[in-house]
Amino acid sequence: MEGPYPSKQVIEEAAKRIAPFVHHTPVLSSSSINTLHGMDLFFKCENFQKIGAFKYRGATNAVLSLSNEEKKNGVATHSSGNHAQAVALAAKINNIKAYIVMPETSSSVKINAVRGYGAEVILCAPNQQAREGTVDEIIKKTGATLIHPYNNYSIIAGQATAAKELIEEIKNLDIIMTPVGGGGLLSGSALSAHYFSPQTTVIAGEPANADDAYRSLQKGEIVPENPPSTIADGLLTSLGDKTFDIIKKHVKEIVTVSEEEIIAAMRLVWERMKIIIEPSSAVPLAAAIKSKERFKGKRIGIIISGGNVDLSKLPF
Amino acid sequence: MEGPYPSKQVIEEAAKRIAPFVHHTPVLSSSSINTLHGMDLFFKCENFQKIGAFKYRGATNAVLSLSNEEKKNGVATHSSGNHAQAVALAAKINNIKAYIVMPETSSSVKINAVRGYGAEVILCAPNQQAREGTVDEIIKKTGATLIHPYNNYSIIAGQATAAKELIEEIKNLDIIMTPVGGGGLLSGSALSAHYFSPQTTVIAGEPANADDAYRSLQKGEIVPENPPSTIADGLLTSLGDKTFDIIKKHVKEIVTVSEEEIIAAMRLVWERMKIIIEPSSAVPLAAAIKSKERFKGKRIGIIISGGNVDLSKLPF
Repeated sequence: MEGPYPSKQVIEEAAKRIAPFVHHTPVLSSSSINTLHGMDLFFKCENFQKIGAFKYRGATNAVLSLSNEEKKNGVATHSSGNHAQAVALAAKINNIKAYIVMPETSSSVKINAVRGYGAEVILCAPNQQAREGTVDEIIKKTGATLIHPYNNYSIIAGQATAAKELIEEIKNLDIIMTPVGGGGLLSGSALSAHYFSPQTTVIAGEPANADDAYRSLQKGEIVPENPPSTIADGLLTSLGDKTFDIIKKHVKEIVTVSEEEIIAAMRLVWERMKIIIEPSSAVPLAAAIKSKERFKGKRIGIIISGGNVDLSKLPF
Repeated sequence: MEGPYPSKQVIEEAAKRIAPFVHHTPVLSSSSINTLHGMDLFFKCENFQKIGAFKYRGATNAVLSLSNEEKKNGVATHSSGNHAQAVALAAKINNIKAYIVMPETSSSVKINAVRGYGAEVILCAPNQQAREGTVDEIIKKTGATLIHPYNNYSIIAGQATAAKELIEEIKNLDIIMTPVGGGGLLSGSALSAHYFSPQTTVIAGEPANADDAYRSLQKGEIVPENPPSTIADGLLTSLGDKTFDIIKKHVKEIVTVSEEEIIAAMRLVWERMKIIIEPSSAVPLAAAIKSKERFKGKRIGIIISGGNVDLSKLPF
């Protein structure tokens, strides 16, 4: 069952619960990128997390929070990629069955990785309705517990632990930036900043070609995603009511960026830092670079959400 | 002027001399690669070194060892890439002039990086003769000191410090592996193992398409490189007499690998470890994988020589 609203204590407990299972990822800096753009950037490298993305934090917290009764029937979810691998591995480690619904357009690297963790993969049409419908059917048939990729308090509390670690390691951050897709990482990071570093502002980056979160925050209510078209394939989903409520309260601003800006930021990190980040992870850096006049001299933590890319389909 | 033969004390002094200027790079492991191939691999990540390669160690040691008189006339060298950047940056930091001869086939990324460090770049035909001839001319004209990319004891002592750090951090290594091109990294690593961890065997990986070191070691004398044709563009050069003498004495074996094996090893590191390594760096890993039956269960340190790749020309 899903846990309670992520209070300070709930996030602290999630951090303790998942600590034996997740990597405490490093925070890296690049003096050449800092000099180039006039900001002090601190990259929390969740691309080095297990399964190559922060999603393993939320999935681990959600799976470990299940009752024994629930564990018997397994877990189910839908995901375009990283959450799928995260749930599959978290389930495998706990010896429970996982049913993963993936859009048939997912990269073969991601589908194979999920199967490699022993999960059952069910492919569906690449839209929200087909994904949710297929998961509902599976749950009816198997009694599995749904682990929603983001609109779930146990997931949000798990994702919050990345920003919590960043705050503990790097003092006096002016800003924390994350990408926003469904809003799990953003809402969790915003709560961690609120509880553990209240003077830090939280700002998201979002692809202009998938800007539902930007428009939702402007309008004050959830605006559904237009058919998104972005290289940042982790950010195709729409906000949920739980993530949006937190984002409305605790996120100051969403900065939208073009595809060209995303690719340039991704390339900058690959070339200067020699680490592999996926396009979604380049979105908050692109947003910081776009805002560099305003952000001049600021200490900015950026959560690098993941490093799972299909090397056969690079944008360079 | 070039320093003395790299004794234990000379390497210890080089380590102290360059310590304030170079990164103490991390040693990373990948449980998934270890499981996949049945070895315990420890990667010394010189791709995170300044200028993105171990070459900065040797260049820094050579530049810092110059007399004040020599510093006035500047330094000159020829290099297909990383050594060029290394000498350029080491010279810049010491406020001395650098003349860098580069083959006209060098990647634009590398040429621009060298110019970015304020060095004067002189392009020449892509062969050893043209490179050496052009450098000779420059030295005659300017009085600059030659910093040979590998056949130079100050360079060898500097490169030796990477293996020294690896040995200090990871105890009881059975094997240390490096790539071999001109032999600077290999000879330095072999000396560090000999002095600081004599029970550790040193083995090199070399592209079969540029196997002069393999053939030289077989024959007991330097065999010139056939026109090399390999993606491992850091390994196109031939051994020098100084590096060969050390390699003959202290290197047990050279394992040659195909282009396909190099690309597969490179891709494995990119996908599983989320770090960017250049093709030359994948050569010792490819050699370890090729030898995995023999190396089963061994503790193997691999020096990841660099991470400078032209992202527009990837082999995936």
